[in-house]
Amino acid sequence: MKLVRYGRVGKEKPGLIDDEGRLRDLSGVIGDLAGANLSDKVLKKIAKVPHDTLPLVRGNPRFGVPVGKVGKFIGIGLNYADHAAESNLPVPKEPIVFMKAITSLSGPDDPVMLPKGSKKTDWEVELGVVIGTRARHVSEADAEKYVAGYCVVNDVSEREFQLERGGQWDKGKGCDTFGPVGPWLVTRDEVWDVNDLDLYLEVNGKRMQTGNTSTMIFKVPQIVSYLSQFMTLEPGDIIATGTPPGVGMARKRFLKKGDLLRLGIAGLGEQQQDVIGFQQF
Amino acid sequence: MKLVRYGRVGKEKPGLIDDEGRLRDLSGVIGDLAGANLSDKVLKKIAKVPHDTLPLVRGNPRFGVPVGKVGKFIGIGLNYADHAAESNLPVPKEPIVFMKAITSLSGPDDPVMLPKGSKKTDWEVELGVVIGTRARHVSEADAEKYVAGYCVVNDVSEREFQLERGGQWDKGKGCDTFGPVGPWLVTRDEVWDVNDLDLYLEVNGKRMQTGNTSTMIFKVPQIVSYLSQFMTLEPGDIIATGTPPGVGMARKRFLKKGDLLRLGIAGLGEQQQDVIGFQQF
Repeated sequence: MKLVRYGRVGKEKPGLIDDEGRLRDLSGVIGDLAGANLSDKVLKKIAKVPHDTLPLVRGNPRFGVPVGKVGKFIGIGLNYADHAAESNLPVPKEPIVFMKAITSLSGPDDPVMLPKGSKKTDWEVELGVVIGTRARHVSEADAEKYVAGYCVVNDVSEREFQLERGGQWDKGKGCDTFGPVGPWLVTRDEVWDVNDLDLYLEVNGKRMQTGNTSTMIFKVPQIVSYLSQFMTLEPGDIIATGTPPGVGMARKRFLKKGDLLRLGIAGLGEQQQDVIGFQQF
Repeated sequence: MKLVRYGRVGKEKPGLIDDEGRLRDLSGVIGDLAGANLSDKVLKKIAKVPHDTLPLVRGNPRFGVPVGKVGKFIGIGLNYADHAAESNLPVPKEPIVFMKAITSLSGPDDPVMLPKGSKKTDWEVELGVVIGTRARHVSEADAEKYVAGYCVVNDVSEREFQLERGGQWDKGKGCDTFGPVGPWLVTRDEVWDVNDLDLYLEVNGKRMQTGNTSTMIFKVPQIVSYLSQFMTLEPGDIIATGTPPGVGMARKRFLKKGDLLRLGIAGLGEQQQDVIGFQQF
């Protein structure tokens, strides 16, 4: 299933994309696509509802992050051997783990806002993993059972903040709007082979990133198992699993006001973001 | 005011410690000590309620994290010159920013659980800052207005995970139970001088850390202003502002099962934690 949350920021309702690509409302079935509603049990319940009985949603509403009440937004760094090479950094022996601030989360087509004074805002198309069931110290063999599904993430990163302002990466990873997620949460039963998904990203129509999850250094089960050794993963936690080559840092081309980003993953949908200047709220 | 959340994990109610040190229930005044209830407006409303009209709470209930719905748990690294020296690390030019996983949060007297295979679990008494009002790009001069109050944080850290397992610190900072917070959220009007607070930490009755916030490299207004340049701070966000000297890493003495931690900050109360072995839930 392709599950979504649609509507205005903070007022999103749960929905489903049917086999004809039409948006249907799920409010009558679940409250929010969050927490315990991400369990296998509830996902199966949703699957059993005849989808043509769900109300069609008119118009073209905004899509939000396809899961609500996200507790942790975890990133894995340098997880594609060819991206590590373009970054002039060694292939890591263990997954590099960082955290994106929850306030960086935004809808898949919401604008990306350049931080004040930013010169090096960069893009990163990534496979997102959404946890469905609480996981602590789970084995690689069992790890997939704890996954609700997959989604597209743009792990937007300010390279100067991340790498040149001292200390840890989190400073350049968690800026507001730096975490577009969606459009869909695609349940894991619908993803045939998570280790063979094409990823792409364009800036103003020009292809910048082309990759396939087959070149990931640490695969999804390894990542989930590994993270669960350091912290309990909870339903709604999102893991961005690293980006393939073609980022701006390697191309010496960073985002400017007015740029248009388009990115996606085969079967998981597409995002589109306008790049805008800093705004005070 | 000294505000608390008391009761079983996940079922905490808001409360207040009155001038005689007795716990009184605030459920009739606010729903939870979280979100918009951390604003100056609501805190003033609570202050105006005659405290002797609030129901006394019997017994000795558990204290939870004194704020609910925490979105971000941010840490500042090496923020005491003498601690940077004992860690053999240079004094940072800008604040070092890392994130503690939300799942690491625990009550001030809840046990600290050693992660499976941990050899280097360490303590860090820290001044915690609780955000009361949304802040984006705020000046140092204005920063204090965005603070609801202060609390004690134990920024428990696994040094091998943090420093020897590749990449970023977050891996060793966010383990379950690694973030005891409380017992109280002391509103900022009640903290006379946040730059002159004594901190201490004992293990099994032996003093390990002794410090004063006067030796912080980056002071609270600088930290709040600085962080707000990288991410919007929201009500309920907690910032752990760094630790004074005396950590286990410098003493080559790490936590073992059966150890007892006692730590506190003048005017902000005291925490006490039993160190326990790994448990699967």
